[in-house]
Amino acid sequence: MDIIRPLALIDEDRCRTNIRRIATKLKRLGIVYRPHFKTHQSREIGNWFRDEGVEAITVSTIGMAEYFAKDNWTEITIAFPLVPSQLNRINKLAEQVNLKIFLTDPEVIDYYDKYLDHPVGVYIELDAGHHRCGIRTDQPDKIFSTVKKLRQCKLLNPYGFYIHEGRTYEKKGKTAVREVLQPVFNFFQDIKSEYPDSRICMGDTPGCSMLDEFPGVDEMSAGNSVFYDLMQVEIGSCSPEDIALAVLCPLIEVKPNLNEAILYGGAVHFSKDRILWNGKEIFGRPSHYNRHSFGAPVKNSYIRGVSQEHGMLTGDPDWMKDLKPGDPICILPIHSCLTANLYDHYLTLDGQRIEKKVLS
Amino acid sequence: MDIIRPLALIDEDRCRTNIRRIATKLKRLGIVYRPHFKTHQSREIGNWFRDEGVEAITVSTIGMAEYFAKDNWTEITIAFPLVPSQLNRINKLAEQVNLKIFLTDPEVIDYYDKYLDHPVGVYIELDAGHHRCGIRTDQPDKIFSTVKKLRQCKLLNPYGFYIHEGRTYEKKGKTAVREVLQPVFNFFQDIKSEYPDSRICMGDTPGCSMLDEFPGVDEMSAGNSVFYDLMQVEIGSCSPEDIALAVLCPLIEVKPNLNEAILYGGAVHFSKDRILWNGKEIFGRPSHYNRHSFGAPVKNSYIRGVSQEHGMLTGDPDWMKDLKPGDPICILPIHSCLTANLYDHYLTLDGQRIEKKVLS
Repeated sequence: MDIIRPLALIDEDRCRTNIRRIATKLKRLGIVYRPHFKTHQSREIGNWFRDEGVEAITVSTIGMAEYFAKDNWTEITIAFPLVPSQLNRINKLAEQVNLKIFLTDPEVIDYYDKYLDHPVGVYIELDAGHHRCGIRTDQPDKIFSTVKKLRQCKLLNPYGFYIHEGRTYEKKGKTAVREVLQPVFNFFQDIKSEYPDSRICMGDTPGCSMLDEFPGVDEMSAGNSVFYDLMQVEIGSCSPEDIALAVLCPLIEVKPNLNEAILYGGAVHFSKDRILWNGKEIFGRPSHYNRHSFGAPVKNSYIRGVSQEHGMLTGDPDWMKDLKPGDPICILPIHSCLTANLYDHYLTLDGQRIEKKVLS
Repeated sequence: MDIIRPLALIDEDRCRTNIRRIATKLKRLGIVYRPHFKTHQSREIGNWFRDEGVEAITVSTIGMAEYFAKDNWTEITIAFPLVPSQLNRINKLAEQVNLKIFLTDPEVIDYYDKYLDHPVGVYIELDAGHHRCGIRTDQPDKIFSTVKKLRQCKLLNPYGFYIHEGRTYEKKGKTAVREVLQPVFNFFQDIKSEYPDSRICMGDTPGCSMLDEFPGVDEMSAGNSVFYDLMQVEIGSCSPEDIALAVLCPLIEVKPNLNEAILYGGAVHFSKDRILWNGKEIFGRPSHYNRHSFGAPVKNSYIRGVSQEHGMLTGDPDWMKDLKPGDPICILPIHSCLTANLYDHYLTLDGQRIEKKVLS
């Protein structure tokens, strides 16, 4: 492939396999899959989920909800606390689709209910210790009063509870991830006995990928698993051969004696997310790309630093010795959600263009 | 301002003052200002440079060069090594404008010269120790043979030398920055005596902002100084009151007892760039915004973490006590180039829309 600039490349087979693996597992467990579409932000990739029987989706912005509503998705959750000024657009959207929103602050309930013209389902977001958004799970009185207040609403309908336990991202391996999630599962079972009509939803790609039981969970919204990335490989959610998004970068300079090369590919092509890998902070890894596959990661090779458009590649001498300026280098990303957000389209390995929403 | 989502906000007065300060200094020193437009990527902001007498610009991609050529900029440098497959577009562009390109690898000279239809000026990029791109300054033979090869070219014309000494970004204060740049200035004076017809260009916002003498330098291409950011404040290039780009974010949750709040504003709105500030890793700082100014940074307040769309704000209790969901919070960015790249337009403080190129 003759490339002029960095391209976001998709391995459709890997991507469909990733979707199918989770969809099949959750179906077997009787759990509804509401995949988070903020990762890919593409109507076409959305159809690959439809092919696996997915009917309900999750997004993170009202713009994304509108984008997918236009493609006839009718069951949409906006998994992000509403901003009061969004109510006009929420009203329009709720007229077209079964809309569900997140609520983290009981103070806004009256205001929202007053301005709604159509019914909207509400997940109460809970905070199990990750300390991002949500009512803390150790505040049962606040949870109770919020549910009570919601039950008195006209069009704001209590639907369920949601927890994203982000601390799984700091762990490695199934046992460690299960240890983080076990208290969440215990809590889900408790709250389910208290509010039996509530639906329980959780996010979390590591848990969703590695575990086989999710006690108390009715729905899962993991999103990253559509593409995976090196961060998920480090956590243990997937193998490098599952990564379905990569950035194809032209090589611009080779320094053979230093085992270094410079890529046209930097912070605006990968994002500046990073992981610790073998004790080093890295921004991506090259793989043994050919026209049909991203291939396995090149041993001992990684991006050691990025500036706006440059990537500094440190590589295995055997692999680097034949490289020359202009060669396409396939970079496996650290965090596919942030990488994907930097492109207005993808290309599949066989060169097919896949449109996506521009910026999230 | 009633905001639905994070907005990139520009203080036009600060921005014009930043442009004027550098333009005036360089004019006085007889140095040509070729500002790097990769920071703002906007034709309209380009006009603010025209107002200060700027006639030559620098960009980092061929797409940006085409974007600004359409706005009648006729003297354009692409400050990034060419990729061989870009030659068709380079030819088209060189037909319209006085184009200058970067060369870091003498191996590609013959190929480029063979395929060019119009004259193109060449800066040889040199590496003074930053070790990104370029021929190393301690390889005079390689520099000599590259110049010689260029002099034999038909349409590829040797124009000058360029150095970006990125190590100034690791320093704090004028003295430390001058210490990094002094060897570069010495080298410039040496190479100038050897190649008296060559133009000497350097980038570098810290040096360009803080120093008053640039021995041997003919042209400067600093770009970040149009907006500045918290990274430049830490280096000492500017004060917080010079920062001309901010992100206005709706507040979505307040946790008054914890002195914490959650913003609608995350990695896709700020980038994931970070600095060490008072021993802590931070992703942005809130300021005392009002409708007419970003205001000064709020003391002891900063973004301690970001996920895709959430920002976790730790704040001064006195400032936080009156905040409520929906309030607009003004965030000063860590690295304005990466932040600006995430938006398709800016708004000025008085609400005027400023278009920009979408993605770099």
